[in-house]
Amino acid sequence: MPELRRDPLSHRWVIIATERAMRPSDFKVENPKPHGGVCPFCPGNEHLTPPEIRAVRQNGAGPNKPGWSIRVIPNKFPALRIEGELGRQGYGMYDKMNGIGAHEVIIETPDHSLEMPHYPLAAMEQVIRSYKDRLDDLRKDSRFKYTLIFKNHGINAGASLEHPHSQLIAVPVTPKRVAEELFYCRDYYAYKERCLLCDIISQETLLGERVVLQDENMIAFVPYASRFPFEVHVLPKRHTHDFCKISDREISSLAYVLRTVLKKIRQALGDPAYNYILQTSPVPLPRPGHPEMWGTIEFDYHWHIEIIPRLTRVAGFEWGTGFYINPVTPENSAKYLRDESVDD
Amino acid sequence: MPELRRDPLSHRWVIIATERAMRPSDFKVENPKPHGGVCPFCPGNEHLTPPEIRAVRQNGAGPNKPGWSIRVIPNKFPALRIEGELGRQGYGMYDKMNGIGAHEVIIETPDHSLEMPHYPLAAMEQVIRSYKDRLDDLRKDSRFKYTLIFKNHGINAGASLEHPHSQLIAVPVTPKRVAEELFYCRDYYAYKERCLLCDIISQETLLGERVVLQDENMIAFVPYASRFPFEVHVLPKRHTHDFCKISDREISSLAYVLRTVLKKIRQALGDPAYNYILQTSPVPLPRPGHPEMWGTIEFDYHWHIEIIPRLTRVAGFEWGTGFYINPVTPENSAKYLRDESVDD
Repeated sequence: MPELRRDPLSHRWVIIATERAMRPSDFKVENPKPHGGVCPFCPGNEHLTPPEIRAVRQNGAGPNKPGWSIRVIPNKFPALRIEGELGRQGYGMYDKMNGIGAHEVIIETPDHSLEMPHYPLAAMEQVIRSYKDRLDDLRKDSRFKYTLIFKNHGINAGASLEHPHSQLIAVPVTPKRVAEELFYCRDYYAYKERCLLCDIISQETLLGERVVLQDENMIAFVPYASRFPFEVHVLPKRHTHDFCKISDREISSLAYVLRTVLKKIRQALGDPAYNYILQTSPVPLPRPGHPEMWGTIEFDYHWHIEIIPRLTRVAGFEWGTGFYINPVTPENSAKYLRDESVDD
Repeated sequence: MPELRRDPLSHRWVIIATERAMRPSDFKVENPKPHGGVCPFCPGNEHLTPPEIRAVRQNGAGPNKPGWSIRVIPNKFPALRIEGELGRQGYGMYDKMNGIGAHEVIIETPDHSLEMPHYPLAAMEQVIRSYKDRLDDLRKDSRFKYTLIFKNHGINAGASLEHPHSQLIAVPVTPKRVAEELFYCRDYYAYKERCLLCDIISQETLLGERVVLQDENMIAFVPYASRFPFEVHVLPKRHTHDFCKISDREISSLAYVLRTVLKKIRQALGDPAYNYILQTSPVPLPRPGHPEMWGTIEFDYHWHIEIIPRLTRVAGFEWGTGFYINPVTPENSAKYLRDESVDD
């Protein structure tokens, strides 16, 4: 059973992955781990993965057989375990918890070498719908406080398999970074009676200098204080705290805008490694006896996707302070991506 | 003038480095930047760096000439500028500040290819004394709220020059991570009337399972909830919030313990890239009319050095949540380093 441990200095939870544990000698710099030649995510190799959770098939074949266009499976080497009770415990002066959670892989396409910037729009939409379906399903499990959907592309972004996929991790505590964003959004709402991210959209639209792309429903811009060169955030223009409330038209827009931004990044920067993460409000549980708490969350968050190309290295200064040094002005990053013309 | 910008969602400050700004095309993955053949940090090349701030010379030569055993210079491409006024400003709904600060390089040795694990103890002590001297000097400048000393070793840790060096960056705001640690330390002190880190030292000594090395004055252990495999913290056993109060005996101990830990890491893991950072209390300014505030800081922080070998990659999950997945248990990391025998 993996363990969740809390660092007393930062109150940051860490997953100590005892089951996928590596031996110290695995880290010797001289011995990079070889990758096997067979891709477990390719059609025909379904038996190499745990049984699927969800898939879309047009050909009427049964589960765990080829014929799918998208396939969701449990991670074979999960960071957290789905079975078990939460169990908070002390360990001397420290705090720990059982490593309960979900860790799934969304295999986005049967085609091993097709990358997201080249997906047909219908395939992009299918990926987004899968995110929504899995989030909808996992929030029924009351042990989980937050589910993060993310994609790692390229070795420098932490991807260990080449076949295009996204991942999902559901955790039993609200993660520090999410709690922080919620706090500052709520704080802003208390002061202004407006959503912080709605105001940011309005500010960015007004200035235009950091906007990369927009359509009727979605906007993509480089944040004013972005940590990394070419960091891009994609937001719905309509205020929605909860990604699961995305409409069909918004799904089409998001498919188009996200794919186009990734295409621009790929073309402008030569296929860099990148991560993207979907930030949405935590499960909005009604608090019994506190209807006003239930109400506020609708106004004090606004879901968004953060795309982080991995071009610079995080070094001592960033680890020590949480400060970042961005060597490209966000305005230059935005202009460069805006001006990069790509096929539709 | 570089700019400090604050991200409204996280209240994280970011340095937008306009002067060392790179053009977007510098990031093309296909074109890694070549490094020149001449090392600006080697003796004889003093004219290639800005004039030195401090150096130790036994041979009586003048400044900016060879003969030094350690040399501190301003960074030639500083992330922040030393001249100017602070100036907080709004920019639409956003917040910015002039990029005032100090950015220095401590050239630890004249020998280009001697690495820290192999320094004579006297040279290690000289490095530590330089840290203390520079911190002591920079805290006289009331524009600076915090000075971070750090070392990046290896390309994967963000080092751009090979010649052994540390760096120092003084910033005009208390960094988020530092403020957070101070907050949790103060909180613990309010609850227990004891220093959090003193309690951690006592807990780790009691259990022993995460201790890597200790002598009479210093202890090195793998933190209970460490984010990374083989992360090691080095702390003085005596409660001291302020690194500048380090005694001569503690300097000798720190030189020995820090060098030995780095030697173990190098030998056990095959010279991995690493960062280390020195965390000390911010400038302990007396608050006029609040002598009790001046008092507390002495008890609610405890300086320490964090060593982070760069063996795993930070991916989407970590960026999105602030959660980390550590694939090696801290107890295994500690045992592996403890058992690695190295020369004194």
